[in-house]
Amino acid sequence: MNALQVIGRKRDALEHTPEEIRFLLDGYLDGSIPDYQMSAWLMAVCTRGMTRSETLHLTRAMVGSGEVLDLSSIAAVKVDKHSTGGVGDKVTLVACPLAAACGVPVPKLSGRALAHTGGTLDKLESVPGVTVDLGPDRFLDQVRRIGIAVAAQSPRLVPADRALYALRDASATVPSVPLIASSVMSKKIAAGADAMVLDVKFGRGAFVGDPERACDLAAEMVQIGEGAGRRTVALVTAMDSPLGRSVGNAVEVLEALEVLEGRGDQQLGAVAVAVAREMCLLAGVGSDPADVLRSGSGLAKLWEMLEAQGGRRDRPPPAHPVQLAIRAPVAGWVEAVDALACGLAVIELGGGRLRKGDRVDHGVGLEIRAPAGCRVGAGDPLVEVRAPSPEVAQRALPRLEGAWRIVPHPVQLSPHVRYRVDRDGVRPAAT
Amino acid sequence: MNALQVIGRKRDALEHTPEEIRFLLDGYLDGSIPDYQMSAWLMAVCTRGMTRSETLHLTRAMVGSGEVLDLSSIAAVKVDKHSTGGVGDKVTLVACPLAAACGVPVPKLSGRALAHTGGTLDKLESVPGVTVDLGPDRFLDQVRRIGIAVAAQSPRLVPADRALYALRDASATVPSVPLIASSVMSKKIAAGADAMVLDVKFGRGAFVGDPERACDLAAEMVQIGEGAGRRTVALVTAMDSPLGRSVGNAVEVLEALEVLEGRGDQQLGAVAVAVAREMCLLAGVGSDPADVLRSGSGLAKLWEMLEAQGGRRDRPPPAHPVQLAIRAPVAGWVEAVDALACGLAVIELGGGRLRKGDRVDHGVGLEIRAPAGCRVGAGDPLVEVRAPSPEVAQRALPRLEGAWRIVPHPVQLSPHVRYRVDRDGVRPAAT
Repeated sequence: MNALQVIGRKRDALEHTPEEIRFLLDGYLDGSIPDYQMSAWLMAVCTRGMTRSETLHLTRAMVGSGEVLDLSSIAAVKVDKHSTGGVGDKVTLVACPLAAACGVPVPKLSGRALAHTGGTLDKLESVPGVTVDLGPDRFLDQVRRIGIAVAAQSPRLVPADRALYALRDASATVPSVPLIASSVMSKKIAAGADAMVLDVKFGRGAFVGDPERACDLAAEMVQIGEGAGRRTVALVTAMDSPLGRSVGNAVEVLEALEVLEGRGDQQLGAVAVAVAREMCLLAGVGSDPADVLRSGSGLAKLWEMLEAQGGRRDRPPPAHPVQLAIRAPVAGWVEAVDALACGLAVIELGGGRLRKGDRVDHGVGLEIRAPAGCRVGAGDPLVEVRAPSPEVAQRALPRLEGAWRIVPHPVQLSPHVRYRVDRDGVRPAAT
Repeated sequence: MNALQVIGRKRDALEHTPEEIRFLLDGYLDGSIPDYQMSAWLMAVCTRGMTRSETLHLTRAMVGSGEVLDLSSIAAVKVDKHSTGGVGDKVTLVACPLAAACGVPVPKLSGRALAHTGGTLDKLESVPGVTVDLGPDRFLDQVRRIGIAVAAQSPRLVPADRALYALRDASATVPSVPLIASSVMSKKIAAGADAMVLDVKFGRGAFVGDPERACDLAAEMVQIGEGAGRRTVALVTAMDSPLGRSVGNAVEVLEALEVLEGRGDQQLGAVAVAVAREMCLLAGVGSDPADVLRSGSGLAKLWEMLEAQGGRRDRPPPAHPVQLAIRAPVAGWVEAVDALACGLAVIELGGGRLRKGDRVDHGVGLEIRAPAGCRVGAGDPLVEVRAPSPEVAQRALPRLEGAWRIVPHPVQLSPHVRYRVDRDGVRPAAT
């Protein structure tokens, strides 16, 4: 077998054998296949696609490139949760405590903010004292003890994904359903949970624009998970407008706490409860997360986790003061809020990352006063900007001006959760 | 403009602007675009294709990467000739002297053997004393003085092609009509002739298998040539069996001399006359190459050229002795001779190149005793192997055994020249 022949097969739209895929991945990791050959292959995959079987074998080869967390010392069905990334997406901070409070062990490895989307690790680090670098022993012990841990991934899991992702990012080969699906699922499989719920987002603020492609991606990931012996369910959810009323780090943790207190944005609550419900179903747990939300035990569970990771209940995350507000130029109803613009505005404020390694100011953020569906009068505040100074706050203006679409008639909002995908296929979500 | 955006456009099957193509090529040559980005783009071109306009702009950008020969001091219409490569393809050695003897100035830059195909430069160097490194002044002077020169390309012409070709060769991005066409045509355009005749080969011994793809490639190249202001005609010719009766270097020069003496293989003579006729038409020269062939002045012109480049009429190229023959296992008619097998056999003998820089033994070769169409008795010689020793000759056996397909009935041979392609389109060749 030689690299040029194998790459040539994908160029010619032929299907790879499992051996060919392992040969390429192993060769890339041991340095015998150079970047310029691997990037040519990645581009061939972007343009020719991969079969389900190829994608599954790629995922397996990636998992096999590193360690796999062994969670078997916890007997119950452990359920992970993953989002493909959105703006204002604090669902993990609500759904995972709810599921854990229902009795589902939730061992979750999470990511950082990248591009216009937020990352759960950055949000957690906005809480004074909280660490996300737990190490495998402390991680496992915390799940065993309190039923939930959200931590950073060890670099020993799926080294192939880090190598491949860096090359994809530098060679215009990111947007490919099989490459995205195998990247996500290899990390989830290596993280060791028995089952997982995926929140696949589509729209302005997501990495996938339309619901059809999101369903394709969801179906691909579900098949990979099931193929690897992990029960997998995906919800396909809308991400045109930011989810909830806040975008940033500290502000999103504060909003999650508010929702777990039974207040806050109803759409956000509905998505979080839907995700938590799927986690309970997969774990075979009978409790209803909606009841748990009302009881306040989800709120207690989130604080329990934050405390276990170094936080203190009397030290909530500090947000910068509101420095300016954008006001409605006309009266009417908010038809949509541009999630991409909001995500980019937070980057301008210093609360996100354009590149890996960029420093994040956890205290900046947006407070959305007029979400989609809302009626506004001329001059009413649409959004308030939290920043260390009025000068920093100004930087968000070019992104935010024009981000609110106001129409002269009432707006009917669709539910956020649109499709449910499991091993039997794609179905419209129950409303 | 940034490289990732431009590469992403081809990945997404969009058409490049001329500026985008120049940006990529300039960036690759100045080192600001690394190999792994360029190979990803090349793969996107392989799988997505390019429009005529993109291919023309790529060719122009490649020509612009180096010097262009200025032949304007020769007033007449100068005509170049190019073959896409075949086995036993000594058409240049016959057609170019015929055209020159008709009065067409022929300034031809040529290539070396690569893979299973031969190269005119290696063939010329089999003649004792002959050099192909003329330099621009001597090259131009020779064309002005005797009407023909065949020489190696200066490294100052189209440096972009050498850089791109090396990367394509190492990244499985060779087989792409627009990339092949722009590579060939950029070199031909930089070589400075006013018009050119392309011999586009298809079949077992060519780089393109079927006549349809050969016609596509021919049409692409003709459009590029015409788009660059050079009158261009292509003949699409069969290359399933080796052309003529010899494969190698010295043996092919000897065969070309024989054909110019009016003897030798008729198919070879027909292809060479057809090519020379197109060269005369483009130059507006009235003489008929078939008459010139009969008169012997083509033979005189080839010797004139060889002498101008350092050869001597009393020192023909030395071929090794015949060391072994392969004989017909049964009586019948030769339906086909596998050109690829013959080309690979010559490489085994040391007469070709697997990689650039491999040394070539000019004296080895094959003498085909039973070409396609020939009737043979059991035990008749099919091919004789010339080599420095019986041991070396043996190396060709695994390739040659089974290369002759013998059938129990007479075989009707098709003419070699199948299609003629000019700016008005593709037409079946006149028979």
